[in-house]
Amino acid sequence: MRILIAPDSYKNALSALEVATSLKAGLFKVFPEAEFEILPMADGGEGTVEALIDATQGEIIKTTVHDPLMRPVESSFGITGDGITAVIEMASASGIQLVTSEERNPWITTTFGTGELIHAALDKGCRDIILGIGGSATNDCGMGMAAALGVKFLDAAGNSVGTGGGSLSDVTRIDTSGLDERIRETKIMVACDVTNPLTGPDGAAHVYGPQKGADPDMAKELDSNLKKFSGLISEQLGKEVGNIPGAGAAGGLGAGLIAFLDGELVEGVPIIAAKTGLDEAVSKADIVITGEGGIDFQTQFGKTPYGVAQVAKKHSKPVIAVAGTIGEGAEELYSKGIDAVVSILDSPMSLEDAIQQTSTLLVATGERIGRLLMLGRGL
Amino acid sequence: MRILIAPDSYKNALSALEVATSLKAGLFKVFPEAEFEILPMADGGEGTVEALIDATQGEIIKTTVHDPLMRPVESSFGITGDGITAVIEMASASGIQLVTSEERNPWITTTFGTGELIHAALDKGCRDIILGIGGSATNDCGMGMAAALGVKFLDAAGNSVGTGGGSLSDVTRIDTSGLDERIRETKIMVACDVTNPLTGPDGAAHVYGPQKGADPDMAKELDSNLKKFSGLISEQLGKEVGNIPGAGAAGGLGAGLIAFLDGELVEGVPIIAAKTGLDEAVSKADIVITGEGGIDFQTQFGKTPYGVAQVAKKHSKPVIAVAGTIGEGAEELYSKGIDAVVSILDSPMSLEDAIQQTSTLLVATGERIGRLLMLGRGL
Repeated sequence: MRILIAPDSYKNALSALEVATSLKAGLFKVFPEAEFEILPMADGGEGTVEALIDATQGEIIKTTVHDPLMRPVESSFGITGDGITAVIEMASASGIQLVTSEERNPWITTTFGTGELIHAALDKGCRDIILGIGGSATNDCGMGMAAALGVKFLDAAGNSVGTGGGSLSDVTRIDTSGLDERIRETKIMVACDVTNPLTGPDGAAHVYGPQKGADPDMAKELDSNLKKFSGLISEQLGKEVGNIPGAGAAGGLGAGLIAFLDGELVEGVPIIAAKTGLDEAVSKADIVITGEGGIDFQTQFGKTPYGVAQVAKKHSKPVIAVAGTIGEGAEELYSKGIDAVVSILDSPMSLEDAIQQTSTLLVATGERIGRLLMLGRGL
Repeated sequence: MRILIAPDSYKNALSALEVATSLKAGLFKVFPEAEFEILPMADGGEGTVEALIDATQGEIIKTTVHDPLMRPVESSFGITGDGITAVIEMASASGIQLVTSEERNPWITTTFGTGELIHAALDKGCRDIILGIGGSATNDCGMGMAAALGVKFLDAAGNSVGTGGGSLSDVTRIDTSGLDERIRETKIMVACDVTNPLTGPDGAAHVYGPQKGADPDMAKELDSNLKKFSGLISEQLGKEVGNIPGAGAAGGLGAGLIAFLDGELVEGVPIIAAKTGLDEAVSKADIVITGEGGIDFQTQFGKTPYGVAQVAKKHSKPVIAVAGTIGEGAEELYSKGIDAVVSILDSPMSLEDAIQQTSTLLVATGERIGRLLMLGRGL
């Protein structure tokens, strides 16, 4: 029997590789002669770099960039084992976790550091970039990111504007002549898991502004600035980014990547699956085990277990998803390619305790699953 | 496929029948064409009457008896569907839950009400009694129970002594001449799940006295009274009860039942299994599902899932045990006839929440088990 274990990470607990290894340890007790393949997975969110590096035996590149408030910060990105693809999480340069609650201020926070990470990836020879966006501290429509790569954002007097969403309305001219030339030969795949448009009631400022520090007035102004800025993009670059689903991701970074770098918004799991060779691994497996810390009705909107199940379904392979928390509507997945959803919990306990014991619980769950499969075999 | 579902109750949550019905509802979603048999089980502890009545379509007999402090209390016992066997839980007449924390006082509390329940069962024509002892408020060596059935406990002046463990040392003569004559033709099977002797450091007074309200001094005196009383039993009735494992159960009620009623201490599950027809049901099943609220290393000491597994093992049938809490050492059961232990928990939650949601969680667990068995079938 061949068992493929391809889970996401368990947030705040274990990396995807650790999750897979723990499950394998449990399954191995029941099926010592099975062939196991472990494939750490991700959906473009937190843990994507680690999963792809683990899956492809790639390397982590450390580099100092500017954080959302333009302070130096130690950051990193990954290069896959084949040396071709850079994997970047924007949050490692421009993430909300890099500023304190008091410092949150989307009026001035910038994605400049994300541009620097892209620059560093180009320097390493990568012309293929997977960029996970999500968890940003910013609302600058990717202006900072583009600036770091040579695009100039000028005010009426011809001077470069300041940073942040507050400065977007000062821009009267976008000068892309200085854009790093290597970008033209680079494919940038932007993994984003939201579908918000850039502006309006469902846009970046109104939906995500508040958690980044905007009060209602600021959110309103930021939205208006984004509108004006996207008008400028349309006028001067000939690109309509406002209504693209996902353009509003990461404070409009989604829109900026499309407008300035010709990036392409993609679903995270398929692109990561392509890099890790998931399809081939599934085709060789008799059963596929995936999972994520939490599984619920939202899982079907591009999360790893759903993405893995779609590949498995193509090959008619059974799929078991293992979670810490099975939430509302998880049973919907039973009609969407996931054959069983199993929790690792073995008794009433707090989330903190569950996180503490995740590895042990996963091992026991692996064994439990193995034992039930074994019983089923005999029926 | 034939699926036998034979669980214990989940304490404070659901009866054994409700547990079984919930699991069936989940399994049925996956195996709509399976034949299900439901057999509520018990081990002699709480829930035994309900399980046996449910399992045999028996009836509950309500009757007013005396509680541990000789106050009237509405109590009940069961008669199995065949009308032959009475099922009594001593706790329903003499249980610790019938007195407040302040009222706890093993010096005076009595098992008189338990004797009254036996009397009522005899009145109903039952000559076969299963008596679950456990959870008592008493330490009277069954003196009250025997008194209710006509045995006289006299002091040096020839007067009946008072109630409770404090009066045991007043007894100089045990007069069994007035014992209800029907007892002689009655088989009393005492289901007890502890192995404590009557006296000494592991005896009734020292181990269980404190939780019944005895301070260290009282526990010491109660122990000494039990010693003296068992000496009297030896002298006057020719029975040595002091060192029988289980004699110390329920404040020495175990010893009293042996001494005064010729009762037999038995393991609960086998005797209940015999009444419910577990053996035959197992022989017809392809797979057996059992369970209890908590499963851990102690389960192998006579709890329902272990008892059911022993019967299943005899017939080489696979066993899945379903619990709310899988505790320390549960994996020991994997070498003792239980093939898989599964928790109903699906996320971090408190015990209270788990109890609240037990039925829903059991249905989902039934489906989950069914899905994994089904996947196994295909491997």
